[in-house]
Amino acid sequence: MWNNETVSAYLKGLQNRITGAIAEIDGGEFLVDAWQKPTGETLQGQGITQILEGGAVFERAGCGFSHVSGPQLPPSATQHRPELAGAPFEAMGVSLVFHPRNPYVPTVHMNVRMISAQPAQGQAVSWFGGGMDLTPYYGFEEDAVHFHRTCRDALTPFGEDKYPRFKTWCDEYFFLKHRNEQRGVGGVFFDDFSELGPQRSFDMMASVGDAFLGAYLPIVQRRKDMPHTQRERDFQLYRRGRYVEFNLVFDRGTHFGLQSGGRSESILLSMPPLVTWSYQYQPEAGSPEARLYSDFIVRKDWL
Amino acid sequence: MWNNETVSAYLKGLQNRITGAIAEIDGGEFLVDAWQKPTGETLQGQGITQILEGGAVFERAGCGFSHVSGPQLPPSATQHRPELAGAPFEAMGVSLVFHPRNPYVPTVHMNVRMISAQPAQGQAVSWFGGGMDLTPYYGFEEDAVHFHRTCRDALTPFGEDKYPRFKTWCDEYFFLKHRNEQRGVGGVFFDDFSELGPQRSFDMMASVGDAFLGAYLPIVQRRKDMPHTQRERDFQLYRRGRYVEFNLVFDRGTHFGLQSGGRSESILLSMPPLVTWSYQYQPEAGSPEARLYSDFIVRKDWL
Repeated sequence: MWNNETVSAYLKGLQNRITGAIAEIDGGEFLVDAWQKPTGETLQGQGITQILEGGAVFERAGCGFSHVSGPQLPPSATQHRPELAGAPFEAMGVSLVFHPRNPYVPTVHMNVRMISAQPAQGQAVSWFGGGMDLTPYYGFEEDAVHFHRTCRDALTPFGEDKYPRFKTWCDEYFFLKHRNEQRGVGGVFFDDFSELGPQRSFDMMASVGDAFLGAYLPIVQRRKDMPHTQRERDFQLYRRGRYVEFNLVFDRGTHFGLQSGGRSESILLSMPPLVTWSYQYQPEAGSPEARLYSDFIVRKDWL
Repeated sequence: MWNNETVSAYLKGLQNRITGAIAEIDGGEFLVDAWQKPTGETLQGQGITQILEGGAVFERAGCGFSHVSGPQLPPSATQHRPELAGAPFEAMGVSLVFHPRNPYVPTVHMNVRMISAQPAQGQAVSWFGGGMDLTPYYGFEEDAVHFHRTCRDALTPFGEDKYPRFKTWCDEYFFLKHRNEQRGVGGVFFDDFSELGPQRSFDMMASVGDAFLGAYLPIVQRRKDMPHTQRERDFQLYRRGRYVEFNLVFDRGTHFGLQSGGRSESILLSMPPLVTWSYQYQPEAGSPEARLYSDFIVRKDWL
C-alpha cells in the first residue's frame, strides 16, 4: 500500500544502499549525521546527512535524506496547482553529489523527491521530481553513452517518451548561461511529475533512484586507477569551479535553500572539497581539455 | 568642471594607482586586459581588467574598471527614481578584490561607481555608490581599527553622519544569512547616493577610493611576512569558501551580472584562487580560529 511512510522508507533505504556501495569501492566510511530542525521555525523536519571526506576514491561524497513539513505550500510550488495554495505539505527526498579524487572519474549528481499537499477538502495530492547527471573532467564517449542508456532503460517501462523529454529537460536545466556551457554530459531531470498517478509516478521516481548505482559505479571502476599528472589535477580543480558557480548561482534548490534558511551544511554537501579559479583559462587547441568543451559539455544525443 | 569624462578619468587613474602600489609590494605584474562588449548586445561598453595571479604576496588580486551604457535603465535601478524609468543610462566603476597568500593578511574588497541617466526632458541625473570592507582569516584588533578609522576620516569632511550610516549599511549588506555571520570586520558601504549634489557626491565617492591604499597597505606590510603553518593555511582556504558563498548567492552585482549576461571573467575576478569546503568544521574552543568567529566577524563598533 503506497503512502508517505512507504516513500520515506524507500528513500532511506536508497540512501543506505548507495552510501554502502560507495563506501565499499572507496574503502572509507561515511559519517552519519542525523539532524532535526529547531522547533519554532516555520518548516519542521529532520534528515540524515551522510558524508565521506578524504577517501581514497572520493575526495568528498555527500548524500542527504531530508523530510520536512510546513503549514503552507510556498507560492513557487503551487504555480501549476492553484487549488493547493496555502495547503499544509510534506517534502522528502534524497540528494547526492560525489566528487572523486581521480580527474578521470566524473562528478555525479542524483536527486529523487516527493512533495505531498493536503487540501482542505479531499485527498492528499503528491508529485515527484528527480534525475541524475554526469560531469566529466575528461570525456569518454563510452561513459556518457552508458550513463544515458541506463537512464533510458530506467524510464522506458513508464513510456517511450520519458527519456527523451527528461534528457532535454536536463540539458535545459543544467546549463551555465554565463559560460554558455552545459554542466556536463547531462542525464535526465524531471519535476512536478504526477501524470501517471501517485503509485506509477512513485515507481518511476524509484526506478531512477534504483538505476543510479548501475549508471555510475561501472564508470568509477573503469577510471579510478587511471594514472594522471598534475596537469589533469589542475584542470579538475579548475572545472570544479563551474560546479560551484552552477549550484550557487543557478540551482533553484540550493539558492532558494540558502536564501530562505535551509540547513546550510546539508545544502552545501554538493560543494567540491578543493576548487580553483583563474582568469581566462583557455585549453590548448586539440588537447583533451579542449575536447571536453567541444565534444562533451554540449547538447547532443548520446544514444 | 565635473562631467562623465572627468569621472571616467578619475576611475581609470584610481585603478592604475592601486594596481601600481599592489604590484610594487608584491614584486609581480598585473595582466592588463582591455575588453569591449560585442556590438549587438543591449548593453554597450568596455572595460579594463587588471589581474595579478600567483604573486609572492597576492595569490589573486583582481581590479576592474568598466563603463557600460544602455538604452533603458533597468527597473531595479529606478525603484527610488520613477521619473527616470526607461531613460538611457551610463554606469562606470572600479571594483577590486585582493586575495593574499599569507593567512594573516586579510582579503579586501573595494568598489566605487556612478550611474547617470538622461531623462527625456532636462539635465542628466547622477548617483554614486561604493565602499570597502575587510575580511580577515585571523583577527587583529589594530587592523580592524585602522581600517575603520581610515574609512571614517575619508567620510567625515562630507558630514559626521556618513561614517556611522555607511558602517551600519556595510554590516547589513555583507551578512551571510545562511551562516548567521558577517563576511568580515566590515567597513563602509553606500549606494544610490546623490544627497550632496553631483559634485560633492562625486567628491565623497572619490575620497573613499583615494583612502583605499592607506586603509589596506599598512595591514599588508604588517602581516605579509608573519610565519604560519599548514593549519593557518587550511583555515584560510576554508574561510575563502564563505567569500564564494557570499558573492555567488547574496552579492547583488555578482548574481545579477552572471544571470543577465555580464562579462563572467570580469565579474568573477572576486573568486579566490583556491578554496576548500568541508562538512561541519568547528574551530577548537579558545583557538585563534574560534576568536575570529566570536570577536571579529560580528557587528561591533571598531572605533
